[in-house]
Amino acid sequence: EAVCMLLPVICALCYHENKCALIFLICAFITYAAGSLLGIKNTRNHEIFAKEGFTIVSLSWIMISLLGALPFIITGVTENPIDAFFETVSGFATTGASIIKNVEILPKSIIFWRSFTHWIGGMGVLVFLVAIFPLSGGSSFYLLKAESTGPSVGKLVPKLTTTAKLLYGMYILFTAIEFVLLKIGGLPLFDSLTIAFGTAGTGGFGIRNSSIADYSAYLQVVITVFMIIFGVDFSFYYLIFKRKIRSAIKMEEVRVYFAILIIAMTVISFNCFHIYGNTADTVRHSAFQVASIMTTTGYATTDYNLWPYLSKSILILLMFIGGCAGSTGGGMKVSRHIILWKSIVKELKAAAHPKRTGKVTLNSSVVSHETQRSINVFLAAYFVIFAFSVIIICIDNMDFETNFSAVAATLNNIGPGLQMVGPTENYSAFSNLSKIVLIFDMLAGRLELFPMLVLFSPYTWKK
Amino acid sequence: EAVCMLLPVICALCYHENKCALIFLICAFITYAAGSLLGIKNTRNHEIFAKEGFTIVSLSWIMISLLGALPFIITGVTENPIDAFFETVSGFATTGASIIKNVEILPKSIIFWRSFTHWIGGMGVLVFLVAIFPLSGGSSFYLLKAESTGPSVGKLVPKLTTTAKLLYGMYILFTAIEFVLLKIGGLPLFDSLTIAFGTAGTGGFGIRNSSIADYSAYLQVVITVFMIIFGVDFSFYYLIFKRKIRSAIKMEEVRVYFAILIIAMTVISFNCFHIYGNTADTVRHSAFQVASIMTTTGYATTDYNLWPYLSKSILILLMFIGGCAGSTGGGMKVSRHIILWKSIVKELKAAAHPKRTGKVTLNSSVVSHETQRSINVFLAAYFVIFAFSVIIICIDNMDFETNFSAVAATLNNIGPGLQMVGPTENYSAFSNLSKIVLIFDMLAGRLELFPMLVLFSPYTWKK
Repeated sequence: EAVCMLLPVICALCYHENKCALIFLICAFITYAAGSLLGIKNTRNHEIFAKEGFTIVSLSWIMISLLGALPFIITGVTENPIDAFFETVSGFATTGASIIKNVEILPKSIIFWRSFTHWIGGMGVLVFLVAIFPLSGGSSFYLLKAESTGPSVGKLVPKLTTTAKLLYGMYILFTAIEFVLLKIGGLPLFDSLTIAFGTAGTGGFGIRNSSIADYSAYLQVVITVFMIIFGVDFSFYYLIFKRKIRSAIKMEEVRVYFAILIIAMTVISFNCFHIYGNTADTVRHSAFQVASIMTTTGYATTDYNLWPYLSKSILILLMFIGGCAGSTGGGMKVSRHIILWKSIVKELKAAAHPKRTGKVTLNSSVVSHETQRSINVFLAAYFVIFAFSVIIICIDNMDFETNFSAVAATLNNIGPGLQMVGPTENYSAFSNLSKIVLIFDMLAGRLELFPMLVLFSPYTWKK
Repeated sequence: EAVCMLLPVICALCYHENKCALIFLICAFITYAAGSLLGIKNTRNHEIFAKEGFTIVSLSWIMISLLGALPFIITGVTENPIDAFFETVSGFATTGASIIKNVEILPKSIIFWRSFTHWIGGMGVLVFLVAIFPLSGGSSFYLLKAESTGPSVGKLVPKLTTTAKLLYGMYILFTAIEFVLLKIGGLPLFDSLTIAFGTAGTGGFGIRNSSIADYSAYLQVVITVFMIIFGVDFSFYYLIFKRKIRSAIKMEEVRVYFAILIIAMTVISFNCFHIYGNTADTVRHSAFQVASIMTTTGYATTDYNLWPYLSKSILILLMFIGGCAGSTGGGMKVSRHIILWKSIVKELKAAAHPKRTGKVTLNSSVVSHETQRSINVFLAAYFVIFAFSVIIICIDNMDFETNFSAVAATLNNIGPGLQMVGPTENYSAFSNLSKIVLIFDMLAGRLELFPMLVLFSPYTWKK
């Protein structure tokens, strides 16, 4: 992280923000010092089990976010430390929910750091760490298990480090392509880079108050395409890279992902046609918004708060679906929904033909009972966290649509919700208590719930 | 049902509604004729498996509701047949959602029939049928399995008919006691009877436009107590009746049920104190509303639409919890929530101590994997139905809070929701398509989802 903080220093120097350059340099030093201090104590026991893995992951994200919040606090762009922490967690968790009312007056280096946290967070800070500092033996398995986005760890190649390096390579490549395409579209260097960071991490921090609305149609289309690309399971690209096109096309999750995107875009296009008046604009806005919400990015080209309720409800539903497992997207993941859907179908088939015993499959292979059980517990935990979060933030007495969509938008790592937290609004109106709840939701959502639950579970800390 | 329709005939004669008396007599005859016709065809194969059991149950409820809607259609109190069907399904499914704008101008006999459907629906039309027309052998097992309210069929005594008679006896007894207490409170005979019917079935059709708001504090307290009584698992009363007080008190579901009631009442009392100004009124209204929503009755003494959002959110949460399994209440049932909660705790314990293998228990006995699996499929199916229902009724373009709470209030068999379907409003503003969706939700919710899903599943009808 300290090394990452040197990039905003360069950015600050380019824009003659000398004070900011110094602040980022100091923050980088503090971060380095903190990291070194944590590294001093060397334990004899290197074994990492579930408990240790989960707590390491959640504490790392909290630690990294606390240190990442320092530039916001020292420069004074946020009103208080909780706001700064909220903004940084939102960045690293690739949520994109902001408490900053006016982004455009911020120093360029601060905007850069804000968008850069998305990019760092995107592939998971720990996949990042695994690629750069390979851990020995099997101890990093639990780390990756806790970190991976989805119901199962897709081991592309047997060795973890190679996997991480490969994912990371694809990630950099796609970001670079998007950057070039945005630059070709006439976007300034700074804008192209920060917008590409936000797309790659499926984050969604805008660098203008209007998010993406003021950009040209070409740029909006490029961003739409790349949001969709970053929401696909990276195994898909690996298979294509290895010329296993057939296996790639057969991936059920990717098919369903595209099917949902197309259906949602079509319905919303018909439903919103009267607002934009012509087909091109309607399709562009609906495609952008559907891609943005389903991949949990959270950019906006239009105020979808003003859309009819059918379209708004479809967006809310997409929030809960999310991207593919093994992508940088958040949410419950398409594969979980496929497995849950198939378990219902299996039950209905069993009612009709009690003698045939069906099995739930994904990509033609049977989904183990262990995986099914973990998805069910995930679902239950998800709704428990959801319900308690809504109840607590309701103390602020904002309307139900705001509260419900705020929790949906943070727990699923999207960013903007509806009404008071809609695409033209921000999260600054919430009380500190609500902000802490939403911070928890963002981290819980990003880490697939359990690392955060294990961290706060009393059983973890009992001797 | 034909016999049941003779009661409104008597009621109509008492109030000199001769036309209505004739209509109910005709309806009773049609119902009897329809039932006889269905009974003519005698198949050689008497075996009933899951598929047959589920379809019999769901088709019976639909059939009974269609016939029960006749008096509404013929007297012309509803605008169209779908409204009449909506009102009757709402009655039999003990929901209490109404499309009638002005209840007070209806003929007395129609109001009587409307409330009486709650009472018939209450214990499940088929438990009723089992008690009166005992089926031979084991074939009625699947019927009861499909009909029972909760994750497991609580067999009080081995023989099904005895169980049904016992449940029915307690049901009549409690209704009678409530009736007497309401009568003592100065309520007219007609009001006492209809309100008692609505409470017993946890239905909630009011006989005044203001629901229960105009009744005295004493009457409101009596109704509160009886709503809570009818939300408890009837096994609890059986155990007390058999002097097994200790086992009764140890019932986990009942304990949790009362704990949730008390916590919700306390929080809402503090949150709404400023509205009523004094402790007695605040506690009375909050207790009434909490009991009404959690037991899925749906009576109201106050317009909780005007409550702060914290209280409203708690009410929404209670909608999803529902009453105890084995009661006349709807919702997801307290026991399902306990088992889901324990499965999360088990997972957190396993993360901390991977060597110990925990088991999910209820009332000190292990919950089988089969039951856990069926609860998980229930949860998945529940949210699928919920999401699709909200999407479809959003076509009417009413606000999100209305649509969300309308589905919550019908799928959980409560009745009134929030905003446009709040306690002072009704469901008449919805389109026919939305009404059909909500009718499906009411039936699906009452029959624990699967009978309705099996009925509409293509696998059921394939050869």
